[in-house]
Amino acid sequence: MPTTYEDLTVGDTETFGSYTVTREEIVEFAEQYDPQPFHVDPEAAADSPFGGLVASGWHTASMTMRLLVTGILQEADTRGALGVDEMRWLAPVRPGDTLTARTEIVEKEPWGEEYGKVDVRIETLVDGDVVCSMVGLVLFGRREGE
Amino acid sequence: MPTTYEDLTVGDTETFGSYTVTREEIVEFAEQYDPQPFHVDPEAAADSPFGGLVASGWHTASMTMRLLVTGILQEADTRGALGVDEMRWLAPVRPGDTLTARTEIVEKEPWGEEYGKVDVRIETLVDGDVVCSMVGLVLFGRREGE
Repeated sequence: MPTTYEDLTVGDTETFGSYTVTREEIVEFAEQYDPQPFHVDPEAAADSPFGGLVASGWHTASMTMRLLVTGILQEADTRGALGVDEMRWLAPVRPGDTLTARTEIVEKEPWGEEYGKVDVRIETLVDGDVVCSMVGLVLFGRREGE
Repeated sequence: MPTTYEDLTVGDTETFGSYTVTREEIVEFAEQYDPQPFHVDPEAAADSPFGGLVASGWHTASMTMRLLVTGILQEADTRGALGVDEMRWLAPVRPGDTLTARTEIVEKEPWGEEYGKVDVRIETLVDGDVVCSMVGLVLFGRREGE
């Protein structure tokens, strides 16, 4: 049975997934959505404060979403999300980096009759360091009659 | 000369850009980064609360970033962003929708000697309605000696 609102407890944590990003994917994403020089142009990136190509922060967030969908949401009765608070890009993601995700339930409250809102701290890690952190406001289904 | 921290005034607003999203792009993005049924599977999407395929919120944010880069950031002395606050997905984005962006400078403060942090309310619009809203924390370069 898929995970519903009732199955979640504040304080629950999970660490999961693995997504290795290539130079080609960093450039391809950025050419479409974030064509700043330090994301698409290796020479300009080398001269930037980053010292080399780095992934767009939106790309990092999107890869993190992929980890969440594959690792958790496929088994959960989720109904989308209201949004995200406090997203911070804390360290650059570079070609060859392998991302994992860590989640912690920080708050939950009913959201109408049918849904529950669950605030989830989502951290993206590379080699144990947090490179991106955010709080997702996720809607879960509630079991009938609870 | 590129836009620097000194050129920006709290209250400044701009509306710009145009990005039309196709069904193919919605599915392609979501298959890679957010493969939930209402983003990738037309039949499942028709039965979902959305009543049809909708773009991943991360896709909407990424398209908004593209509008920002093309419309503003290419002419600006920006040094990346610290993160995003209060991102809200307010209405679904569907195949064929054309997105525009609206920005408003809501706060600015020096950030060390070299940078200034500028908080920018960024709204994504479809047919005049706000479909996504966030506050970007953007670092701009400061002019020497100011």
